[in-house]
Amino acid sequence: MLRRFAKAADIPRTHISMVGFMNAGKSSIMNAITQQPTSIVDDTPGTTADTKIALMEIHKLGPCKLLDTAGVDESGKLGNKKLVKTISAVKESDVVLFVIDPFNFRPEPFKNVIELAKRRGKVSAIIYNKFGGKTEDFNKKQADVANAIQRISNQPIPSITVSAINQKSTYDQIIPFIAGLKKQTKPVPLLPPKFVGPDKTLFLNVPLDIESPTGRLIRPQTMMLEFALRKLSPVVAYNMNLKVGRSENSKPESDRYLKNVKLIGPSLIVTDSQAIDLIHKWTPPEFPITTFSVAMANIQSGGKLNEFTRGIEAISKLKKGDKVLICEACNHDRIGDDIGTVQLPTKLKKVFPGVEIDWAFGRSYEDKKLTDYAVALHCGGCMISKQQMIARIQDLLESGVPVANYGLALSYLASPAALERVLKPWQ
Amino acid sequence: MLRRFAKAADIPRTHISMVGFMNAGKSSIMNAITQQPTSIVDDTPGTTADTKIALMEIHKLGPCKLLDTAGVDESGKLGNKKLVKTISAVKESDVVLFVIDPFNFRPEPFKNVIELAKRRGKVSAIIYNKFGGKTEDFNKKQADVANAIQRISNQPIPSITVSAINQKSTYDQIIPFIAGLKKQTKPVPLLPPKFVGPDKTLFLNVPLDIESPTGRLIRPQTMMLEFALRKLSPVVAYNMNLKVGRSENSKPESDRYLKNVKLIGPSLIVTDSQAIDLIHKWTPPEFPITTFSVAMANIQSGGKLNEFTRGIEAISKLKKGDKVLICEACNHDRIGDDIGTVQLPTKLKKVFPGVEIDWAFGRSYEDKKLTDYAVALHCGGCMISKQQMIARIQDLLESGVPVANYGLALSYLASPAALERVLKPWQ
Repeated sequence: MLRRFAKAADIPRTHISMVGFMNAGKSSIMNAITQQPTSIVDDTPGTTADTKIALMEIHKLGPCKLLDTAGVDESGKLGNKKLVKTISAVKESDVVLFVIDPFNFRPEPFKNVIELAKRRGKVSAIIYNKFGGKTEDFNKKQADVANAIQRISNQPIPSITVSAINQKSTYDQIIPFIAGLKKQTKPVPLLPPKFVGPDKTLFLNVPLDIESPTGRLIRPQTMMLEFALRKLSPVVAYNMNLKVGRSENSKPESDRYLKNVKLIGPSLIVTDSQAIDLIHKWTPPEFPITTFSVAMANIQSGGKLNEFTRGIEAISKLKKGDKVLICEACNHDRIGDDIGTVQLPTKLKKVFPGVEIDWAFGRSYEDKKLTDYAVALHCGGCMISKQQMIARIQDLLESGVPVANYGLALSYLASPAALERVLKPWQ
Repeated sequence: MLRRFAKAADIPRTHISMVGFMNAGKSSIMNAITQQPTSIVDDTPGTTADTKIALMEIHKLGPCKLLDTAGVDESGKLGNKKLVKTISAVKESDVVLFVIDPFNFRPEPFKNVIELAKRRGKVSAIIYNKFGGKTEDFNKKQADVANAIQRISNQPIPSITVSAINQKSTYDQIIPFIAGLKKQTKPVPLLPPKFVGPDKTLFLNVPLDIESPTGRLIRPQTMMLEFALRKLSPVVAYNMNLKVGRSENSKPESDRYLKNVKLIGPSLIVTDSQAIDLIHKWTPPEFPITTFSVAMANIQSGGKLNEFTRGIEAISKLKKGDKVLICEACNHDRIGDDIGTVQLPTKLKKVFPGVEIDWAFGRSYEDKKLTDYAVALHCGGCMISKQQMIARIQDLLESGVPVANYGLALSYLASPAALERVLKPWQ
């Protein structure tokens, strides 16, 4: 799982969407934000004309993905299709900006996205766009809109008023405003806080083999290092020799591991899932252990690892005739022992004879009747952003189907006892 | 220095150049290598038509940069210009393939590149390209060429015979051949071997501040981690709080550092240069210390750190009227306290009144009379590949001018004693 997750080459970005009525000035706001000289400006190929995407490095905001959506008030069949895209954009956003011309506003078409943003824990804000006219009239209309939105969201939403036609002044106002919003986003911590701090040493087991990339570590490993170092935890990285550890003459390798663990006395041992068999067997019970996969699963569930635990429970109760949905974020080339189409189905059918397997690639799970399934198992999402992955998992969870990811499912099928142990530090 | 070095976003690649006469089949060989489905194929923009470059991920070879050069036998003014480019390509190569049609070969135009490749420690090989004709004649001609090249190089050069017009069979033959050559390239180790191994724990000081990237470590840090882990060394990553360490109440921070160092008993402490003042002051003399900058300098000098030490000696002897050449690999946008144009000249002139500073950006050092300079100081080469950087440093060294890099020069100017200490582990 770790290997596949590590393929997500894209750097972490703050996702910011602009949502509102047609002609409210969303694109002007987008252009105001992007007008500055930037490191990277890119129209992601393959995005539909309705949601326009810019990937940028913005001063004071860092790497961003900006999503300029179609008007939520567009009617007809095409309008509905565009609304689906807008909803997708909101789901993958960290920050949702409602761009509003107070002279052209009705609560109804906005209601869904405001509620969605709230339910999914997005940081929302209103950008009032002043096109001109009397300030007095504008202020009155603006107050009406604020009240209407307050009634829908039932929580205060910060706002700013700009004149988007003036791109320079809009830029100067809006960047610090968005920077403030960004600070309110709460990324899920990589590990439970109790395991990190100046007096808590983290122990990372990073078994390297010829297939591991040379000259670097993979992303979950460097993420974990940086996370713990920021909390002033010393971090020990350790390369367990799995071949020796699984051989008949494993004693020197287990001795070496235990010597280091006992010397350091780590607050937590995090291992590559590959090595969980040895780590589980060799680590004395007083040392808590977990895996990089579990930490990634926690992030991908938006910090709700217990939801995935519920998915694992659902697996444990599978019986003949039950249906399992295997979901993959993309439709990549499948190699011989592909996890989703070969490994996982084979193991599931072996442990639970008579279960039926179904697959959903890309967004096709939206067409499935999810309540028909006993459990949905999702891939690691290595080719999509963290935000897109969280959105997909939340979609599944909201349908009521129990969900787990490949990593946890494989761990469960390999050793329920080991999985139970690596989940324990998160309880 | 570290920050700038870390910007080199490109992944490490094996550089492979094809060199030979016009119409010897260099481009056919290039096409044979690149014909397979690949992850990335790219014509680097801005490269001149004479050397064609492909960046590829090749099965069994990994990430490569392929350089298809112009014929070394092209005459006239344009031919000479192209030869300069070919020589550049050879200088930045790890593997040089001499592509030869035995029926069209003269030793003379080849002599320079064969000698250059040998002098610069390149792995060289001959690809004999058989266009057709009688095998008997071919074998005789081939033997003549082999003898001629043997006389020039004075060392055995491995060879292979292909029929480049048949791309499939050429591919099947040449990839394992190049893979074998790649194994002969000897990358400079990141640290002296005596400091790494299963019983030797490395201690890396990685002070993080708000300017450090979030969610990852920078390249020299992950390179060092991976290098030591491969040798089965446990690696401790540690985040020293420099602000507290330099404050009046620094005791808790130095205590925390010493507690960890003494517990672990590292074979070597490697620190970000930023923290060298505290590490030098706090680390007991029994623990050897060095910096990431020194490790990078060692790589950039092709493993000849003592050459840079000679450059530092030259700095220490600077006197009024001496000329210092500051070399930068590229002509980037310069910000306020730019190292090459502001920081370094200011500090040099302060410590050595009356020295004269000159600059060479890009390849313009080739136009300078290098023997006029007391010392040349080169930037960290953050925007070019490791191989290009090594080639530039070797160019300077071959001219006889003492050379050092920015990192070592700044360390020397900040504290000669600290620099002496961090160079010691390399002696």
